[in-house]
Amino acid sequence: MMIYLDQIREVIDGNYFGDLHHVFYIKNVSTISDAEKDSLIWIKNSIENKQELIDNTLASIIIIPFNCNLIPAKGKVLIEVKNPRLTFIKVIEKFFVSKTIPGINPTAFIHPEAIIDPTSFIGPFCYIGKSTIGKNTCIFGNVHIYDNVKIGNNVNIHAGTVIGADGFGYERGEDGVVYKFPHIGGVVIEDGVEIGSNTCIDKGTLGDTLIKYNAKIDNLVHIAHNVEVGANTFVIANAMVGGSTKIGESTWIAPSVSLMNGISIGSNATIGMASLVTKNVPDGMTWTGFPAKPLSEFLELQSKLKKL
Amino acid sequence: MMIYLDQIREVIDGNYFGDLHHVFYIKNVSTISDAEKDSLIWIKNSIENKQELIDNTLASIIIIPFNCNLIPAKGKVLIEVKNPRLTFIKVIEKFFVSKTIPGINPTAFIHPEAIIDPTSFIGPFCYIGKSTIGKNTCIFGNVHIYDNVKIGNNVNIHAGTVIGADGFGYERGEDGVVYKFPHIGGVVIEDGVEIGSNTCIDKGTLGDTLIKYNAKIDNLVHIAHNVEVGANTFVIANAMVGGSTKIGESTWIAPSVSLMNGISIGSNATIGMASLVTKNVPDGMTWTGFPAKPLSEFLELQSKLKKL
Amino acid sequence: MMIYLDQIREVIDGNYFGDLHHVFYIKNVSTISDAEKDSLIWIKNSIENKQELIDNTLASIIIIPFNCNLIPAKGKVLIEVKNPRLTFIKVIEKFFVSKTIPGINPTAFIHPEAIIDPTSFIGPFCYIGKSTIGKNTCIFGNVHIYDNVKIGNNVNIHAGTVIGADGFGYERGEDGVVYKFPHIGGVVIEDGVEIGSNTCIDKGTLGDTLIKYNAKIDNLVHIAHNVEVGANTFVIANAMVGGSTKIGESTWIAPSVSLMNGISIGSNATIGMASLVTKNVPDGMTWTGFPAKPLSEFLELQSKLKKL
Repeated sequence: MMIYLDQIREVIDGNYFGDLHHVFYIKNVSTISDAEKDSLIWIKNSIENKQELIDNTLASIIIIPFNCNLIPAKGKVLIEVKNPRLTFIKVIEKFFVSKTIPGINPTAFIHPEAIIDPTSFIGPFCYIGKSTIGKNTCIFGNVHIYDNVKIGNNVNIHAGTVIGADGFGYERGEDGVVYKFPHIGGVVIEDGVEIGSNTCIDKGTLGDTLIKYNAKIDNLVHIAHNVEVGANTFVIANAMVGGSTKIGESTWIAPSVSLMNGISIGSNATIGMASLVTKNVPDGMTWTGFPAKPLSEFLELQSKLKKL
Repeated sequence: MMIYLDQIREVIDGNYFGDLHHVFYIKNVSTISDAEKDSLIWIKNSIENKQELIDNTLASIIIIPFNCNLIPAKGKVLIEVKNPRLTFIKVIEKFFVSKTIPGINPTAFIHPEAIIDPTSFIGPFCYIGKSTIGKNTCIFGNVHIYDNVKIGNNVNIHAGTVIGADGFGYERGEDGVVYKFPHIGGVVIEDGVEIGSNTCIDKGTLGDTLIKYNAKIDNLVHIAHNVEVGANTFVIANAMVGGSTKIGESTWIAPSVSLMNGISIGSNATIGMASLVTKNVPDGMTWTGFPAKPLSEFLELQSKLKKL
Repeated sequence: MMIYLDQIREVIDGNYFGDLHHVFYIKNVSTISDAEKDSLIWIKNSIENKQELIDNTLASIIIIPFNCNLIPAKGKVLIEVKNPRLTFIKVIEKFFVSKTIPGINPTAFIHPEAIIDPTSFIGPFCYIGKSTIGKNTCIFGNVHIYDNVKIGNNVNIHAGTVIGADGFGYERGEDGVVYKFPHIGGVVIEDGVEIGSNTCIDKGTLGDTLIKYNAKIDNLVHIAHNVEVGANTFVIANAMVGGSTKIGESTWIAPSVSLMNGISIGSNATIGMASLVTKNVPDGMTWTGFPAKPLSEFLELQSKLKKL
């Protein structure tokens, strides 16, 4: 596959200079270290030896930040832009990402009362219960959606994920016998949400489990019944969110974190990797540890432990 | 959907009083906070301001405990019962939980020598190997059951779960080469067991992996080869149970716990969230921490750490 | 099923002695404790009371180490060999492990440009994207392989595993908006690799995620984008490997471990159960803890904490 410089000009609005008489196309995009002769790469502002990198790379087209006074060697084209990384992403999205074609794979099994917008994609071996799926949503293969799930627009759900199974609503009665609390709630997944592979989002007990606008959930995450994940919040791989816990907006739940049931994590908060959180975390705070505490307390404790 | 008071009377045996001339039906069941005009709710004994709740809720039918001297406002019916929570569950189960219809989904793939009781349900995209499945058992979609698995009666297995895959039986020989110990055991799942979504229960190496009567296993749990999970025991989300470990009866393994291989956890024990257990835990004990220790020692250590 | 002594002789080259006139066959292989009359068992060198075990077991054929001076009781045959365990494995593999028959299950959905060697097995409800699969490879059911995955020879992938989904490549821009870094890399899985159930291996962002020769990955493991897992390395259940992290050869990543993104774990290293690793670990080291440190430091700290 060849992407011609003229095609790139249509996507990138920047200052093009260098060997424009000899560089006509690229064949791929690449990291700096993996670049080949026909690669396009980008250099971030924080890198120090930019000129050296440009001189040594095999790549023929290099996206660079403004005002760096870089000189292209022979056979190279430089493109000055405001945000090289975003520009690089634009090139990838335009030329290298294959778009999913809307439609329902013939092997999928759809409940007769499911409502699926025709602009969305349902992959092989998906089961869609009595639920609704919005526009431009992409549900990859082997995904199982139980009844009573509302999925918005521009949502991506990766393979093997299960949405809307019964929550873990058992209780041991006074007589020692185990009762199951029936789950009749649902799951609401708002626009722009992305969910990784083999993740589980349980339905609510009475109300709904709620994943808000643009939240990003990674692989192998457990979201229990009646949880709320706020807008633009990240919940990363292998995390466990206990029942009825609420997470605010733009918060970062790092990999392997465990959040106890019934607590509240604020907005713009950060929970450090593999932490066990058993208390409410206020807005804007970074908590970490086992059990988790504010970062400053965690670091202080670590430093005291070193001096023991 | 309307559920008439007369239908409710057939299910709930209690003292009905209040505005029986104006309240005729409900449309849903609800938590106190989400209640609407046509909701049925319940109030637990331990709540203090019961009369205030009843006066303020929109719900028209409220299940209450005996001997609370509550006065119904106009447009409300109260039902006095011994155990409001269990009564509430009965209403949900009778009127709001849709029963799974027995049968095998046409997309399921069944081994010719599998034995499946006709009262059980096998969902879409399930694979059932040379195994047996008892009565009134419900296996949701995308579940994979390998050969040599025995599943009892009244078992629920949620979507994406895998039962009977080879255990992790590798060893590095003296020559550095990795050998695989072949797995020819099976899995036995007794009556009343429930298993969540995307959980993995490996087959035994020679003998069987055993999940006993009424045990409840949540989502994304790993149960290694030759593990025994005792009757009425709970193993909650993202827990990891190492090979040949035995867990007693009525024990609580909290979310994200890791149990080392080859250990023994007693009956009526509790393991705290995200704990790493490397030793045997006696009956009735609560252990927690990293590594886990008896709760009293854990709390003592935490209190000493605070004073450092 | 009966396996005759003559058939066993064809597989095991050792010294046969004892009641060869009365023991003609076995019906199963077993652990010492579960042995029945027609079982074959093995005894390891490190066990002390070997003669007592042999006298008391119901098993009729017992594989023993050389030079133990053991005397078979009536009705028992002993087979002296150099490595009883490996010999036992050979018997199991020869007579008790059912071989997977090559071919593609009719329910599998294969991309028209996928290349699958005819000696390999593709199970029910598998989706294979535009990818390649080598010889004698076995992909169990409900496995989802995205585009751009190269799987070698003699690879086993258990049910429910997802390979090649997008990595978690989001970033919050300076404007607070979340951008997704498009993933156009792939996954390379070399010969002899085994992967458990419901595991996720994400594709690389630009380059590939790489699982090297003979690596063994267990159930419910998360392998993020651009990770490298070295040859003969074990990554055990519920482990989480962050993006771009490199793991050397013959290393042991215990269950429930979390490896931060962008770090490097050496060869012949050992990471203890449920540890959180945030720094590079040198070759040959054992690290454990939260956060992980060299084992000697961890033990020293534990001992100091006891004395507090």
